[in-house]
This record gives sequence, structure tokens and C-alpha cells, in this order.
Amino acid sequence: MHFPAALPLQSGKSIRGYDLSFETYGALNADHSNAVLVCHALNASHHVAGVYAGQANSEGWWDNMIGPGKPVDTGRFFVIGVNNLGSCFGSTGPMQINPDTGRVYGADFPVVTVEDWVDAQARLLDVLGIRSLAAVLGGSLGGMQALSWTLQYPDRVRHAVVVASAPNLTAGNIAFNEVARRAIVTDPDFHAGHFYEHGVTPKRGLRIARMIGHITYLSNDVMNEKFGRQLKRAVEDATRGEVAAYQFSTQKIEFQIESYLRYQGDKFAEYFDANTYLLITRALDYFDPARHFGGNLSQALARATAKFLLISFSTDWRFTPGRSREIVKALLDNRRDLSYAEIDAPHGHDAFLLDDARYMGVMRSYFSGIAQEFSA
Amino acid sequence: MHFPAALPLQSGKSIRGYDLSFETYGALNADHSNAVLVCHALNASHHVAGVYAGQANSEGWWDNMIGPGKPVDTGRFFVIGVNNLGSCFGSTGPMQINPDTGRVYGADFPVVTVEDWVDAQARLLDVLGIRSLAAVLGGSLGGMQALSWTLQYPDRVRHAVVVASAPNLTAGNIAFNEVARRAIVTDPDFHAGHFYEHGVTPKRGLRIARMIGHITYLSNDVMNEKFGRQLKRAVEDATRGEVAAYQFSTQKIEFQIESYLRYQGDKFAEYFDANTYLLITRALDYFDPARHFGGNLSQALARATAKFLLISFSTDWRFTPGRSREIVKALLDNRRDLSYAEIDAPHGHDAFLLDDARYMGVMRSYFSGIAQEFSA
Repeated sequence: MHFPAALPLQSGKSIRGYDLSFETYGALNADHSNAVLVCHALNASHHVAGVYAGQANSEGWWDNMIGPGKPVDTGRFFVIGVNNLGSCFGSTGPMQINPDTGRVYGADFPVVTVEDWVDAQARLLDVLGIRSLAAVLGGSLGGMQALSWTLQYPDRVRHAVVVASAPNLTAGNIAFNEVARRAIVTDPDFHAGHFYEHGVTPKRGLRIARMIGHITYLSNDVMNEKFGRQLKRAVEDATRGEVAAYQFSTQKIEFQIESYLRYQGDKFAEYFDANTYLLITRALDYFDPARHFGGNLSQALARATAKFLLISFSTDWRFTPGRSREIVKALLDNRRDLSYAEIDAPHGHDAFLLDDARYMGVMRSYFSGIAQEFSA
Repeated sequence: MHFPAALPLQSGKSIRGYDLSFETYGALNADHSNAVLVCHALNASHHVAGVYAGQANSEGWWDNMIGPGKPVDTGRFFVIGVNNLGSCFGSTGPMQINPDTGRVYGADFPVVTVEDWVDAQARLLDVLGIRSLAAVLGGSLGGMQALSWTLQYPDRVRHAVVVASAPNLTAGNIAFNEVARRAIVTDPDFHAGHFYEHGVTPKRGLRIARMIGHITYLSNDVMNEKFGRQLKRAVEDATRGEVAAYQFSTQKIEFQIESYLRYQGDKFAEYFDANTYLLITRALDYFDPARHFGGNLSQALARATAKFLLISFSTDWRFTPGRSREIVKALLDNRRDLSYAEIDAPHGHDAFLLDDARYMGVMRSYFSGIAQEFSA
């Protein structure tokens, strides 16, 4: 969808006419009261559910959660997935042409924030004729958007579902983002963000960034269980169980965990835009609704009137249960209606994308409750 | 000290005549029974204590622990610091000339293991006339060497002091090492490890490696307390408390934690050798005394006859207290004499290098006990 009007941004800049990619699932009911907006995290897109005809492995990134008969049942809800401004899956971003210069934006793409994304999403809902959301839903950075919706447009959100998220990043979270960004901007193929016109992409940096990310998404338990100290079979065979080949050429991979991380890094570097990575991690760093309230989250959330479901996972060391509890505490200070589930799951931050009977059960139950609030 | 005889290595290769840099503090007593060997971790050296005359900021890396009147009292002990083979502070390593080729070793330096370092250290003690150590002492990777001493030379070690260490690396530990190594080997200035002859060093990669390392050395609490979400003053002034400048040029630094990490990365890249980084992190990955016992650490440690002091720190998430307890358990299974202190300290893995009254007290007390076992 093209939006001809400029969007004012938090930075004071604005973005001229822009496009947003989006998908919808299910049908909007007569009084437009069954809409659920799904916000995505760092590397995902508007394609949250379903498959593309004739394309293998084209399942949406939250296809286990959203679809006919699934916890977020598209037989009852009209679900909207939207690719955020600045991302690289069809919405206007650093890879598109800057109408002011006729050149690809690259590093000139304006900095966008969680609040900017929410503003852009609200405009999309305006065009779709959706005044009020039955729910806004997101995990991780997507959860931050859901939270921000309840502050920016309190009268347009009936329920906010915030999964594996946090009210802001810790210094440690920022540190990981910063190392990943440094890997990208110091890649000689970055060319100060204008690599497109050089016909290259900073893949080395993107690979490192993704490897760092993946370590933080997994729990130590899962890494140990899945990979342990296992050597790659080929190496074990060659060395007959002895210590591996005592080499580290750039090709040689020895421990299974290394192979896994390199694979993830290589795959990511093939499809993700480096400038988008920088933009989105900065949006993560900046998000901090308590900032204008002297750090007082309870005061910051006083504006929110939605009902909340918060979910965290016991082994998530990126956004720990303690971070979700901060939001719970601030909402309770404001006597808001909320449910909170702390799921004992082994998968770390990644758990929010995975099947877990209790997690799925909580979501199914909560969305069933929402569905009873509107006529089919 | 030059060692003319070749040293056979675990890999099956050997290293021809080599040098080891070392320093000693205090005096060896008449029956050579008061020697303490200090093993270093990743980026340290033989310079463990004291200062160099006329050089500001030249304190040894463990100067708070070792010296006259300090917990490891050089008025009573003859302390030896040695730079490990393959390191870059004077001992033979990748920056030296390979006698076989006349070229700088670079990537051709043979892979060395914890066991190889211990063998080389034992040869140094032979030359110094030290048959038996009053104690071998190390933190982190240094603690692994101390542990390995008790297995390789059980009759030459009376006490082993293993601080903030582990019986092997977890998959998560290996993962961080691997990302750091990838950052180095994919730096275009790495030249497959032969960068010396190109007159460059892979500083980009070294910076990233060090930044990753520093994140894992600090606890989340310390990062939050020390840096929190504070913006750099210059940025705050310029933006008058508003959200920072919404830019990420390669120069711009916004959060304090970013500034800290970049400083650490820059400093490290100036003095540390990239091939040494690869070698030493691989030695960390490979260390696993239980490997030849089907993963049974109790069986692996049956050879050890030394008395042990083990110390861990509550907020160390790199080598958690649980990892030290694995060693404690295995030693207890063998009915060994040991003391174990779990220090409640906020500083993460770094705590082993910092002043903490309880930590220092435990060390002082333990070494006083050792000193009573020999005549002055």
C-alpha cells in the first residue's frame, strides 16, 4: 500500500510518500471489531502465517500460532501482518530510492523508532477501516510495539499481547547490538552504508551480527543439549575420536555449534539488508517509554487502558522473566486488567516462536476470550 | 629462556627450539619448596606482579593478589609467571620466525593445548631446579592449566588453586569463541594468517573479538550499574535530554556502554596478535580432561593428588559456580582434600582479577596455610 502523505518521525525528520507491505488472513467482520495486528521483531516480515502457493518452505514466521483453528484463529479474527518502515521485505527502506535525491537511500534513510512504526501501522489501519483493534500482538521487539500501541493509541487497542519482551534494553542488550553493528559498519564492503552502488553487500559483518544474535536467542541448556561439545562427524571420523584436527583454516569446522552458527550467519547474509539491521537494532536500543517519566515505568504506563496478556520464558536470558515482571508491576500499579504467564521452557528467547503446549494453551485461551467480546 | 630441545605437542607435531618469557618474584628457599607457578588466561602474560622501573601503569595483571604482604606473599613464596607458548609477549609464537622456513610463523604456528603449555612450564621448572610446586595458581583458562598440572604431573604439585574456571567449555562458551574467531579470520587484513608480511593487522576483527569477550566478562548487573542506559554526555547536551541524535555514523557513539566497548576493542587491537587469539581460544575449546574417560570427570580427576582450593563468583555467567562445583564434585568422588569458596560478588567473570575482601581473605588464608608447610 502506498501512502502519499509524509510521515513525521520522532527524530524531527519526516519520510515522504512511502509503501508498506502487508498481508491479511481471515475476514474482517461487519463492525470491524475482530482485527488483530501482529508486529514483527528484528528479521521477520508481514508474512506471519500461511504459505505462498507453489512455494516450498514458505510458511509465515508465526504460522504455528496464527491460522485456521490455531491459537490466534483466523476463522474468527482478521489478522494483519505488516512489514515495518525501514525493513527490507517490500516496505520502504534503505534499499529503496530516496525521492529527494533519486539515489538509493542507504545510510541516508532516516532513523525510525518503535513509535514511528506504530504511527505508520495506525495509518494502515485507517485505510483498512479499522478504528479499534481487538488485539495487538508481538514477541520481542514486536512486543515493544504492542506495548507502545497502548500508549500512543490507548483508545484503539482493546487487548495487548506482549510476549518475551521488555520495557527497554539493558546495557548488556545494547552491548550485543553494538558489537553486531560494529561488525557491519567496519566491514570494508559497507562503504558508509552506500554499498548498493558499489555492487557489494557487507556479508562478513552481517554473518557476525547474526551469529551473535543467535547465541543470545538460545538458552545455554538448549545449546548444550543440541550441540554439546560434539565434534562434526567428518572430523571425528578423520581423527578416530581423538582431539580434532588441531587446525583452524577458514574452512575447517569442528564443533557442531560452530557449524550451526556459520550456517545461520551465511543464510542471513544472503537475504537481509545491512542498513535495515542497523536501523532496527537502534530502534530497539532507543525504546524506553519510561524515559520521559524519569525512568518511572508505572507513570509511563498510566496512559494504557488496554487489557494485557504478558508471557515470558524461564530460560530467556535476553529478555528475562524479570523484565516482563517490570511491565506487570507497572500495570498493576495502575490497576490494569492483566494476565501474566511465565512459561517454564528450555529454549531461551527463541521459545516465543516455538511450539510449547502450555504457551500455546495460554494464547489459545486468551484469544478465545477476546473472540467472545465481539459478534462473529 | 631458550629451550633448544624440541617440544612434542598433543597434535603429534612438535616445536623446535623455542623461548619462554618469564618473571620471578621473591626468593627460592633453600630446599626449593616455596615455588608458586601462576598461569595466565587469554590476553595476559608472564608479568603478573610489580612494576617496571620508570614505566607508568606497568603493574602486573594480578598485582593486587601477588606481592610483598599480599595474599600470595612474595616475602614467603617464590612466584613464577610465564608467558605461554604461542602467546605474543616474548615467548615463541606466531609472530616469531619459523626456523623451518625462515618466515614468520603466522598461521603455520602449530596448535597448542593446555597440556602443551603445562609441559612447557614443567621444563622451565626443571631448569629453575624446582621439582615440586608449593602451588600452581590460575584464573579462568589459567585455572584450567592449574587443574591440568594436577593430572599431568601429580607428584609435582602440592596445591592447586583454580579460580573462576571450568572443567571444559560449554557449547555457549565455544559459540562466543567461534564468533570472535570468525570476525578475525574474515577480516580482509587477516590474509589467511600471514598478514605480517602484508604489513597489516586484522584490527577490525580483533576489535570485535575483544568487544564480545568483554561482554562475557561482565555481569549484567555491573553493566547496568556502570553504564545503564546512560547516553554519552556530549550527546545528551547536544540533544538536551531528548532521544539521542538518531544517527549512527561510524563515528557517533551514544550509549556509554558502546563507548566503553569500543575503547576496549581499540586498545586490544593495538597490542594483541590475531593468530595468538585464535590459538588460545582453540586451546580453551579443546580442554576437556574428561574426554578420554567418556565424559566422566570423576574418573578423569582420579590421578590428581594435590590439595585444591576452588573459587567461583556468583555473577560469573561465563564460568558459572555450577562449573566449579562439577570439579568439586569430581574431587570429592575421589576423596581429595579441597576447599571451595563461592564468592557473592557483582562483577561477573572479571571478579577474579578485582579486589573483593572475602575473595582476598580466602586466598590470603589459604596461602598462609601453604606457607606453614615449608621452612622459610
